[in-house]
Amino acid sequence: MNLKNITIYDIAKDANVSPTTVSRVLTGSPLVKESTRQKVLAKMKELDFSPNEAARRLTKPQANLIGFILPEITNPFFSQIYMEVEKRAFEKGYTILLRNSMSNSNLESTHLREFTERRAACIVFMGGRINKTNPTDAEINEMQDVLTRVPIIMVNGKMKGVKSANIRTNEEEGIRSIVEHLVSLGHKKIGLIGGAKGIFPADNKIISFKRILKDYDLEFNQDWQIFSDFTVESGREAMKKLLENKSLPTAIIGINDLIIYGAYKECRDQNIPIEKFSFVGFDDIYPSDIVYPSLTTVNHNYDVLVNEVMRTIDSIVSGKGKGKGKIINTQLVIRESTKEL
Amino acid sequence: MNLKNITIYDIAKDANVSPTTVSRVLTGSPLVKESTRQKVLAKMKELDFSPNEAARRLTKPQANLIGFILPEITNPFFSQIYMEVEKRAFEKGYTILLRNSMSNSNLESTHLREFTERRAACIVFMGGRINKTNPTDAEINEMQDVLTRVPIIMVNGKMKGVKSANIRTNEEEGIRSIVEHLVSLGHKKIGLIGGAKGIFPADNKIISFKRILKDYDLEFNQDWQIFSDFTVESGREAMKKLLENKSLPTAIIGINDLIIYGAYKECRDQNIPIEKFSFVGFDDIYPSDIVYPSLTTVNHNYDVLVNEVMRTIDSIVSGKGKGKGKIINTQLVIRESTKEL
Repeated sequence: MNLKNITIYDIAKDANVSPTTVSRVLTGSPLVKESTRQKVLAKMKELDFSPNEAARRLTKPQANLIGFILPEITNPFFSQIYMEVEKRAFEKGYTILLRNSMSNSNLESTHLREFTERRAACIVFMGGRINKTNPTDAEINEMQDVLTRVPIIMVNGKMKGVKSANIRTNEEEGIRSIVEHLVSLGHKKIGLIGGAKGIFPADNKIISFKRILKDYDLEFNQDWQIFSDFTVESGREAMKKLLENKSLPTAIIGINDLIIYGAYKECRDQNIPIEKFSFVGFDDIYPSDIVYPSLTTVNHNYDVLVNEVMRTIDSIVSGKGKGKGKIINTQLVIRESTKEL
Repeated sequence: MNLKNITIYDIAKDANVSPTTVSRVLTGSPLVKESTRQKVLAKMKELDFSPNEAARRLTKPQANLIGFILPEITNPFFSQIYMEVEKRAFEKGYTILLRNSMSNSNLESTHLREFTERRAACIVFMGGRINKTNPTDAEINEMQDVLTRVPIIMVNGKMKGVKSANIRTNEEEGIRSIVEHLVSLGHKKIGLIGGAKGIFPADNKIISFKRILKDYDLEFNQDWQIFSDFTVESGREAMKKLLENKSLPTAIIGINDLIIYGAYKECRDQNIPIEKFSFVGFDDIYPSDIVYPSLTTVNHNYDVLVNEVMRTIDSIVSGKGKGKGKIINTQLVIRESTKEL
C-alpha cells in the first residue's frame, strides 16, 4: 500500500469518524470521547500515519521553534556559535530554523516576518542591522514591532530603543588584553586595521583602542588606523594602505581574524617578511590555528556565550522572562604571530 | 491589547462561529459559506492575527519544506554547499531546515524521523551513513522506509539498494587531474594521506589513485598511503607517520584540504621545510587560499553541484520526478603548494 498520501481524511474514513474528530484527537481536544480517541489512534498506528506535527500546533504558538538570523553561515564566527546552539537546542527538543541575511536589511525583514507568522518562541539575531551604530528608524520600528509578538535575543549587537535580551562580547576588555600583551612584549607603535565606519563592533573597538592607548601613555597614530571592511580581501587592501606610510607600526591589530589573513597575503605579495610585525586578530575562528604564523587572537569564550544564549532561550520558552543584557568576558589566545620587539 | 496570544478560539468567539469553522477557513475547506468565510477573515484582520502557517498545512504535506542533513556546518565543505542551497531555495519560497548529524547514525535517524513526521517535500542528505562503504542493514532499511514517504537527494554519497536521487563528485576524475598535474611537474613518487577505511569517498579516492598510478606506470607504495581520519589533527598524525619512512615521496595528496593543513603544521613542528614536498588537497574550501603556501586542490564545481541539487528539488516539488544519478566533474585549482621537481 502507498503510505505516502495518508491524510486525516483517510484515517477518518477508515475509523468511521469525521475528519474533525481526527483533527481533535491530533490537537488533544477534550471534546473527543476516550473510546473514540483510542479507535482513531489505533487506526493511525495501523495505517502507519505520521501525524503532521503541524496539526498538533494548530492552535498555539510553536513553543519549540527558535528562529536564528545571521549574516552568513560560511563565516566561522557565526557557524561556530550557530552549531553549538543547534546542538544544545536539539537536545532540549527545540526546532531551530536558520536564515542567512547576507547583512541585507530587506532579507532581515523577510526573515523577521516569517518567524513572526510562524509564531516562533523567540528569534536569535546576529549581525546586520543590530551591528549598525546608527540603524534607520524603519529598522528600529520593525524590531520594536516584532518584539510585541516574539522575543528577540541579540547576540553581539544592540539597538538603541529596542528592549530585547542582549548578549555581547566585552570588546573593550578584548582590546585591552591585546594592548596589554603587546606592551608587555615591548611594542609602543600599534596600528589597527579593518572594519567599516558605522558598524558598531568596529566603532567600539576603535574607540576602546584609543582610550586604552591613552591609559598606557601611547600615541594613537591616525595613519595606522585604516578602515576597509571585514573580509580577507579587505584585509589585503588595508595592509596595502598601511604599508604606504613612511613610518610603520611594529604591531598590527585586525578588527577580526580574517583581516589579518589578508594582511599576511599582502605582505607575502610584496615580499615583506611577516615576522617584521607582530599581528593580533579578534574572534579566534578555527583557521587562526592553521595559518602561518598561527595567529594570536581574542577568543569570545564561545562556551560561555552559547550557555548564556541557551539560558535565555530556556527562560523565554518556560515563560520565566525575556532575558536582559549580559556581557561576556574574552580570553586572549597567544600563538606565534606576536613576539618580543 | 496583547496580540501575542490570539488563537483561533479568540477569532471564533469574536466572530461568533465555532473554532472548527475558523479552522476550516484556514484550511480552505469548501464546507464554509462564503459569507461566513468573509466574516472570519475580517475578524482575523481586525485582531491582526497571523494565521499559523502550520494550520494551512494541516492536511497536506509541507510542499515547501526541505530537510537538510549534514555532518557539521562548521566544516566549510558542507557550509559552502548548504549556504548556496539555502540562498536559492529561499528565492523559490522553500523553507530549509538544517540538521547537523555529527555523522552519528542515531542522530541521523532522529532527523529522518522528524522530517518524515513533518512530511517534508524532500530531504537533502550529506555525509554519515551515505558515505559508508558498508552501511548496516538497519541503516539501509531505514532509508528505504523513509523513501516510501519522502524523496531523498544524496549529495556526494550513495547507498547500495537505496534508489534515491544521487548527485556526486567525480572523485576519480579529480584524483586523475592531480596525478596528471604532479607528473607534468616531474613527480614520480606520490603519497596519499588521510581518510578512514570503510568511508566510501576515501576508499574510492584510494582505489582511483592506485589505478591512475598504474596508467602512468608509477609505483604505488603502501608505506606512503596512510589512513587517519578527515580532520586537521589527523592530518598531523598521518604526516608524522609518513615522515617515519626512510624513503619519502616528493608529492603528497591529502584525502581533503584539512589533512594538508595538518601536514603543514607537522612539518613546521619538525622543522622540515614545507617546500621539500609538493602538496595537493581535495575540496577547495576557502582557507586553502589563505594557508601558506596556498594549496593546490580539487574544486567540486560547487556551482554546478548546487544547480543540480536545486534542479532535483524543483523536479520533486513540482511532481515531475524524483531525480536520478548525476556525476559532477571537478576542476583542479593550481596554487603555490605544487612545484616542479
